[in-house]
Amino acid sequence: MSRNRTNAKGSARAVAIGVDLGGTSVRVAAIDDEGALLERFAAPSRAGTPDEVLDVACRAIDELAKLHSGATRPLVGVGVAGILDASSGVLVEAPSLPGWSGLDVRAALEHRLEKRFVMDNDANLGALGEAWCGAARGADNVCMLTLGTGIGGGWIHEGRPFRGMTGMAAEFGHMTVQREGLPCRCGGRGCLEQYASASAVERMARATPALTEALADAPSGGVARHVHTLALRGISEARRIFEEVGAALGVGLAALVNALNLPIYVVGGGLSAAWEMFAPALFRELRERSFVYRATEPREGLALARTTRIVPASFPADAGLFGAARLALLEAESRQAHA
Amino acid sequence: MSRNRTNAKGSARAVAIGVDLGGTSVRVAAIDDEGALLERFAAPSRAGTPDEVLDVACRAIDELAKLHSGATRPLVGVGVAGILDASSGVLVEAPSLPGWSGLDVRAALEHRLEKRFVMDNDANLGALGEAWCGAARGADNVCMLTLGTGIGGGWIHEGRPFRGMTGMAAEFGHMTVQREGLPCRCGGRGCLEQYASASAVERMARATPALTEALADAPSGGVARHVHTLALRGISEARRIFEEVGAALGVGLAALVNALNLPIYVVGGGLSAAWEMFAPALFRELRERSFVYRATEPREGLALARTTRIVPASFPADAGLFGAARLALLEAESRQAHA
Repeated sequence: MSRNRTNAKGSARAVAIGVDLGGTSVRVAAIDDEGALLERFAAPSRAGTPDEVLDVACRAIDELAKLHSGATRPLVGVGVAGILDASSGVLVEAPSLPGWSGLDVRAALEHRLEKRFVMDNDANLGALGEAWCGAARGADNVCMLTLGTGIGGGWIHEGRPFRGMTGMAAEFGHMTVQREGLPCRCGGRGCLEQYASASAVERMARATPALTEALADAPSGGVARHVHTLALRGISEARRIFEEVGAALGVGLAALVNALNLPIYVVGGGLSAAWEMFAPALFRELRERSFVYRATEPREGLALARTTRIVPASFPADAGLFGAARLALLEAESRQAHA
Repeated sequence: MSRNRTNAKGSARAVAIGVDLGGTSVRVAAIDDEGALLERFAAPSRAGTPDEVLDVACRAIDELAKLHSGATRPLVGVGVAGILDASSGVLVEAPSLPGWSGLDVRAALEHRLEKRFVMDNDANLGALGEAWCGAARGADNVCMLTLGTGIGGGWIHEGRPFRGMTGMAAEFGHMTVQREGLPCRCGGRGCLEQYASASAVERMARATPALTEALADAPSGGVARHVHTLALRGISEARRIFEEVGAALGVGLAALVNALNLPIYVVGGGLSAAWEMFAPALFRELRERSFVYRATEPREGLALARTTRIVPASFPADAGLFGAARLALLEAESRQAHA
């Protein structure tokens, strides 16, 4: 791996450090301005106190920055799993990072390293990563749904995260898709997350008697993946679960397409591996419920710039890391422009 | 009425001509840059062919422009009821203006008058009017739901209409609020419009045996208003209808608040006169279903810049006319800035 690259124009490439602080691991990567991943580091995020995890992350940031000559700039992009106040850097709520709620993550990082940190939530940065060099490559306006344990929502507007008034925009997982539906951890009822997340697949599978025996083999934490395997084997009860996932996603996406009229929506997260299983029901509902989609559905004779595309994510798990690096590059550009 | 006003700085005020081409009437007004309505004109929009209606409108535009010395600029703002391709000026679909679908309204206007016309749909311009000098005065980011025969949606982002990829954004009336609900004229099912429009109130009232007798007195076209009167008189069946309206609005607004995280959402249109009747159910559902709303609900100690407000519209019927004038003023400013 070359550590002193040049870009097509022969000038030294900028290298950004991206950090993804998720519920399972903290990951740090050096990524160049053409989207090439140069080096990466990962450590479990629940192996210690927030202080210990931040110490580990900062050592990795420092090391990667020193190794990559292009990464001398002081800006580091950080994605955090949770509700982040992007302007202050305070993690308002972090269900998947016990002990982190209320922490001023930016101050804690800047206390450790003489760099400046630009931050956003992991779902927005996932969307930014997909828009930069993933399934929505080149698009300036993108929404992304990340189907994991919960459902994260990200939204890139004119190339940058759309944050809303208090950084809480794009909570697409908590749109109602079933009015008198199941209670959700958010306090609501019938949220999309209750029907189209990995947890929802697990719940539905466990409530299906015909699947009980087959699920006995499922690795803990991997039930949704196992249900996917069963569906691929043609087990109809498993397939029906993904049909429900797709139908719920179709209801939610129809509302988004009618409200936002964007060119592209990306479906990512672990559960998106089952795209072929849930996509038919998704498009069936979407087509029925969204006249905006019907008017812009990709078809012969309709210019690409007037079509609505719904696509699976390109990055299995790294979109947020690329998005974090991209955020740092964008922010550096915009500070240079205003300097 | 003075026709040669000066503003606070003593310079001549700019006057814009705004046009609202609705399903009932075409209205034209001269409005100054501080939002004062100087003069207005209205004619029925279904009294003739599109050509005849446009002739009448253009004569009024020309006359008002000549009467108001500040209105010499060539830009006129026009709002149209229907799905408009704002860039081309073509009215793609216009259910409330029979015979107008497919018409290039901008070309037809420019053919008649030596002016340039900036256009948008009436719902976006309603939101712009409310943001300029109505219930959302001074806000740069506003959504508006217009509860009429159908439900129109408008969205102002950073002071300008958010149009989306093909000018079809903000179709908030066609978000699903009842998954297995009533079929909608849009082709979908369970749309907000089926539960919270004046037509929905009429349908629910006619399906309520206890109201049959009382509705015999209702003026044609005014059933929703009559149901409101009955609710004000304390008739519980009429009140229950507005509770359903409020609950459906709460489900839809919860999705919007979770997705957009804006500071203010305006509820307008004829049915918003019944605000006190439906607001309690609206806020109950919203509070339950939107953690973004709960985190930003107006309360003591929370800065105004961090609160989500849901308010009834200020203008009973004229928001779109003010918005049309505002669009012309904004566009003139932006052309001057780029000249």
